[in-house]
Amino acid sequence: MSAFVDRTELRHARGATSQFAGRGALDAALAELGELLAGRRVFALVQPPVAALHGGVLDRIAERVGELRRIDVPDGEAAKTVSVADRIWRELSVQGARRDSLVLAFGGGSVGDLAGFVAGTFARGLGWLQLPSTLLAQVDASIGGKCAVDLPEAKNAVGLFHHPLAVIAESDFLATLPEAELRCGLAEVVKMAALLDLDLLERVENELPKLLGGESDALAPVVVAAIRAKTRVVESDPEETSGRRALLNFGHTLGHALEAEIGYGRIAHGDAVVHGLRFALALSVARGGDAAFAARVARLLDRLGSPALPPLAAARLLERIGRDKKAVRSGAVWVLAQAAGEGRIDRDVPSELVAAELEKFLGARAGRPL
Amino acid sequence: MSAFVDRTELRHARGATSQFAGRGALDAALAELGELLAGRRVFALVQPPVAALHGGVLDRIAERVGELRRIDVPDGEAAKTVSVADRIWRELSVQGARRDSLVLAFGGGSVGDLAGFVAGTFARGLGWLQLPSTLLAQVDASIGGKCAVDLPEAKNAVGLFHHPLAVIAESDFLATLPEAELRCGLAEVVKMAALLDLDLLERVENELPKLLGGESDALAPVVVAAIRAKTRVVESDPEETSGRRALLNFGHTLGHALEAEIGYGRIAHGDAVVHGLRFALALSVARGGDAAFAARVARLLDRLGSPALPPLAAARLLERIGRDKKAVRSGAVWVLAQAAGEGRIDRDVPSELVAAELEKFLGARAGRPL
Repeated sequence: MSAFVDRTELRHARGATSQFAGRGALDAALAELGELLAGRRVFALVQPPVAALHGGVLDRIAERVGELRRIDVPDGEAAKTVSVADRIWRELSVQGARRDSLVLAFGGGSVGDLAGFVAGTFARGLGWLQLPSTLLAQVDASIGGKCAVDLPEAKNAVGLFHHPLAVIAESDFLATLPEAELRCGLAEVVKMAALLDLDLLERVENELPKLLGGESDALAPVVVAAIRAKTRVVESDPEETSGRRALLNFGHTLGHALEAEIGYGRIAHGDAVVHGLRFALALSVARGGDAAFAARVARLLDRLGSPALPPLAAARLLERIGRDKKAVRSGAVWVLAQAAGEGRIDRDVPSELVAAELEKFLGARAGRPL
Repeated sequence: MSAFVDRTELRHARGATSQFAGRGALDAALAELGELLAGRRVFALVQPPVAALHGGVLDRIAERVGELRRIDVPDGEAAKTVSVADRIWRELSVQGARRDSLVLAFGGGSVGDLAGFVAGTFARGLGWLQLPSTLLAQVDASIGGKCAVDLPEAKNAVGLFHHPLAVIAESDFLATLPEAELRCGLAEVVKMAALLDLDLLERVENELPKLLGGESDALAPVVVAAIRAKTRVVESDPEETSGRRALLNFGHTLGHALEAEIGYGRIAHGDAVVHGLRFALALSVARGGDAAFAARVARLLDRLGSPALPPLAAARLLERIGRDKKAVRSGAVWVLAQAAGEGRIDRDVPSELVAAELEKFLGARAGRPL
């Protein structure tokens, strides 16, 4: 159990994010960021269970800043509401946050999403730091500057791009995660690996039991590779305008509709993505993609062990897909696997084909474990 | 009454804003923006009294877009709340706003602030257009991409930079404004003219009766010059990092504190700025600025005829100044007039000097008309 820290930069229009990943990432980050933190007032948005598990972390940060004030936020998606954001804005205002104050997110992806949105909109933008505590947040949610809260009608509907000053993905945090959370993080890893990094895909295939078992030695290099893969894509298309960044939505077109239809909290995001990826693979084959590769990725997804889908009406899912915020006038945008390591953004999938494939998919899978 | 349209660009990190100002600005803009608007779904945020006064405007825009949906918003500062923003976000979501939908703001500065904030945060950023109907919005609020809503504790506390695709400052809208609104717009014009454009200052001095009388022929060139002056400053310091853009806060350090202390709605923003400018001029002289120039600008401000201040406690204003979101660790930031056409950002004004000057200022001015 020796230290192994990967230090990368994500360059963006307004500067760069310093990214630290691996075992010892927190030590490395605190050593490097000393000058940035010194004397600053830091507002730490924290999930209480995370703080309880890793109690010393906030104390160590508090020693290096001018003043650390903790603001507790709800667990999971419940943190990502306009009313929670409003409460935090008001606390920042009452507690005297200023232009040079910092926001720190300590917890899962939902805390990062909330904190980035609040930081990006308070006083027209405070600097902020991410300390992601879940695998999903470390490999995906904390990378790339997307921050948002939900509306009752639509997830991530209200947000902006606001890159953090630093992301600190400490592998030691992963040792305490339950298997369901590791599975959900691995779903996003598979999403990226299949289209962006075949070495990573092979690594996940080979080490899946260790990864699902939360072994830090196995997880750390996976986190590092996923962050690097996502960073390359984000730098090539920072605000998802050219299309390349949209590859990261592989599995998410149906995934988001599944979450909304089944109900947030009743299906985990990562599990919805697993099902969404399975469907995107089927659609890929129907649109001429490599069937052998699709089958290979599907096998790996099945090994993750996500719960089965409940019975669902295709028509309602199709309607939700059409309302997705990524949709444009011509309809839904699908990310397909064209071949091994090669994704394709397809804006022209006939809606009849989607409907037919979805009926087939739901008929075959409903009520059956993956 | 012939057409006179000034067409400028404000270049920013993500592109450029097309700015149309003068009599006939709407015609010119609709002619140029035809392709941008064609087929789009446009959500028009509108103050009902403005729409009633200029009824044909929305119809003319509706003819050129795919679909125009009107969403009414409250008048004035009441539009700039998190709860109004939340209602608009939800309407956008329910009404099927998508990445290629546009938001249009038609009304005073408050509608523009709200609309820009909502557009900048919905689906991580929709394009938007401004059709400012007040003098204050045309010369100042609509230029430069700052958008925000208020918290109960602090004005403009929640917002971001989100530049519109176009600003259409049609002079014909100004003919129906009451004198109090013209006065408030002229306060911002004087603010800019004194530090950025002495020709404009002289023009306002010479034509004040016509300007306060709402004469379009006099107002149009003032609007054009103010937009050009502000555009140059914004381009030189887009997000107020180098300090130059902070010159636009001349008169606003005390002005914001006055508004908060007296109560939004009980003193107009422009009138608070007039008093704030008078104080900033006094402070400028106390810090070595040109006394003759300060006296010249003060005389012009007095001619605007703003209502007198009610009795106020200096200590409470000082506390509010310290809480200003522009404050940094070292204290309040003051914009001073060093000499004619030359401003200075002063971060080191001793708080004892501010307190002493404020006591003097309040003692001399309270209860007296300007």
